[in-house]
Amino acid sequence: MRQSKQCAGFRASGVAAAIKKNAAPDLGLIVSDGPATVAAVFTRNCVQAAPVTISRQRAASGVGQAVIVNSGNANCCTGEQGMRDAVAMADAVASAVGIDPEHVLVASTGVIGEPLPLAKIQRALPALSDALRRDGFEDFAKAIMTTDTVPKLVRRQGDIEGHPFTVLAAAKGAGMIRPDMATMLCFVCTDVGIDAGLLQQCLHLAVDRTLNRISIDGDTSTNDMVLVLANGRSGAKVITPSQLGPFQNLLCDLLGAIAHRLVKDGEGVTKVVDLTVDGAASDTDAFQIAEAVAHSPLVKTAFFGQDANWGRIIAAAGRAGVPLNPDRIDLFFDDVQMVRNGRGCGPQAEALATKVLQRPEFAVTIKLNQGDGRATLLTCDFSVEYVRINADYRS
Amino acid sequence: MRQSKQCAGFRASGVAAAIKKNAAPDLGLIVSDGPATVAAVFTRNCVQAAPVTISRQRAASGVGQAVIVNSGNANCCTGEQGMRDAVAMADAVASAVGIDPEHVLVASTGVIGEPLPLAKIQRALPALSDALRRDGFEDFAKAIMTTDTVPKLVRRQGDIEGHPFTVLAAAKGAGMIRPDMATMLCFVCTDVGIDAGLLQQCLHLAVDRTLNRISIDGDTSTNDMVLVLANGRSGAKVITPSQLGPFQNLLCDLLGAIAHRLVKDGEGVTKVVDLTVDGAASDTDAFQIAEAVAHSPLVKTAFFGQDANWGRIIAAAGRAGVPLNPDRIDLFFDDVQMVRNGRGCGPQAEALATKVLQRPEFAVTIKLNQGDGRATLLTCDFSVEYVRINADYRS
Repeated sequence: MRQSKQCAGFRASGVAAAIKKNAAPDLGLIVSDGPATVAAVFTRNCVQAAPVTISRQRAASGVGQAVIVNSGNANCCTGEQGMRDAVAMADAVASAVGIDPEHVLVASTGVIGEPLPLAKIQRALPALSDALRRDGFEDFAKAIMTTDTVPKLVRRQGDIEGHPFTVLAAAKGAGMIRPDMATMLCFVCTDVGIDAGLLQQCLHLAVDRTLNRISIDGDTSTNDMVLVLANGRSGAKVITPSQLGPFQNLLCDLLGAIAHRLVKDGEGVTKVVDLTVDGAASDTDAFQIAEAVAHSPLVKTAFFGQDANWGRIIAAAGRAGVPLNPDRIDLFFDDVQMVRNGRGCGPQAEALATKVLQRPEFAVTIKLNQGDGRATLLTCDFSVEYVRINADYRS
Repeated sequence: MRQSKQCAGFRASGVAAAIKKNAAPDLGLIVSDGPATVAAVFTRNCVQAAPVTISRQRAASGVGQAVIVNSGNANCCTGEQGMRDAVAMADAVASAVGIDPEHVLVASTGVIGEPLPLAKIQRALPALSDALRRDGFEDFAKAIMTTDTVPKLVRRQGDIEGHPFTVLAAAKGAGMIRPDMATMLCFVCTDVGIDAGLLQQCLHLAVDRTLNRISIDGDTSTNDMVLVLANGRSGAKVITPSQLGPFQNLLCDLLGAIAHRLVKDGEGVTKVVDLTVDGAASDTDAFQIAEAVAHSPLVKTAFFGQDANWGRIIAAAGRAGVPLNPDRIDLFFDDVQMVRNGRGCGPQAEALATKVLQRPEFAVTIKLNQGDGRATLLTCDFSVEYVRINADYRS
């Protein structure tokens, strides 16, 4: 089983460095056998953690060889000391593994505002380096978890002009699956050969279609990042834009699977909801309405209560800031039509819809019948457990 | 005690009409002895309930004499039938009380999408009319409650050029105190004499300073409304704008008290938080940041957990969409400084701040030190009980 979670020319590992209070793994490392092409997407929050600043600078060169990640501490709001600690954390990797310090990217996730326990990280690095293995990605994925209940590791294989290649992603989730509110980290390794410009283009498109479709509005937390390392070890190459297709598609598929797992393992989540807004004046309008619905606490608590309370959905759509005619709205739970022309379809539809809401995953489709705009978001319910987790997070 | 909750020339009542399932009072009526000046503010949601449409049309005339309000059913997403029902509900009042049907305003709150049980309302009207009393406002305030746990009734007295006058407000709250997500209804009676234009001007200013400061962004639900009836029975008159002062101030004070009660009695609320953002580039920026913080589920659940998790507050401020320099932020819980220049003030400050968070009410002040902009919002925590209430609302 673990055999399959590999990607040519990469090794990974994860260990417990006592950064977390509970002795769980909290330090992870990925190393490529040689320098790799790098692409990256970072948080747009005005408050950015030190590792974000450092990795942004380093990724801009288009070259990287290793990623070190700790959980349990975000190294954010930690001032100049935080910057020095992030650099020192990368330097320790470079020494232990024997690579250029400038080729080490760094990420952190956890509580904001506490100093990074650098000494613990430095002490753990020899063991972390010794543990590097081809099949070490499961350990890596476990080490970057915070409130995640399962590690997220996905692998896909494709073919470019007869040359097979692999993409592999390890990720950790965010409270309530909103990258603007907690940390979403995702690390992608691939053995494709590709230049930094094309890789960045692919990543932007894939993130826009997947990870940004589980977010509010592209707003992100203090620590979010998605990094891709492409080391070319498979022999499969993307040289011209016309060769992008297979790699682009596989990357979208990979990150789509990661996005789904992030939602499913969201804090306290009991329902995964595939929300579509159709027939808006534009795609942008549709997205804005979908966001208003997806983030309404009243809608989310109704999902948790398995309550086909379509009135809350319509009311949330109505306050999205986009003009709409309520008398033309149709609404479906999976294939059960619950609202026609803005009015409820009656108790029989409600009984069927209530059964839909008892499923762990279902679709909500809002048809505005006012244009061709369309947007889809993956969202979730809002449970008692979510509040418990987040009320007690630091204690 | 009840004696004091009166306003000259007004009578009020409340009865149980079996609209709610639990036999609680659900129908309320206010009647002025003669036609009164009317001012009103309504929801800006694109989806508007039938009573909102009817009352908006009638309030535009500047004259009204009665308000009929039901809880238990929002009469929203009910199409043409809903409009006919809202008009019939007002007609029934006009017949029972013997006034012009066009002078009856109407409001509803409750579940969206179910037909209004008009026959029950019509059957209850003789009893409702018979129950009208000078001291009937407590009964009225009880009849308009939904998930409110206490009726909200506030009275203030003032003086205009030697003539005493009264303003009295009855209100019901909204889920999570966000008027954009549930219904906030507020009915104000005053015995001041004032023309409709000046009254509307006063109401807008007062709402902007009070009820809109417990809201996200002026977005409102399908049913929200604030109505004022001014019948002139006290002899105190506002004739020119220069005479507005005492009335304007008292109206702001009254609605400020109502706003505080709405937050305090919010669904599942255990903490009332007076949130101030200071030193922003503009008041608008400050308000935008305050909203992002006030509505962050992570911040609200930390308040519930009595956790002085300032990192979440800073992170929410950072994603508000307003440029800010995190290294200049100071943050206070009441008078305890927790953050200086973007960094935590250490364990001693944390210990003191934790004590502040154990209070039922406290202030959070975010000083950006980047300009003169300032905004204050009244907000609350987000509890396990909130989720329970809203998951089970219809069952």
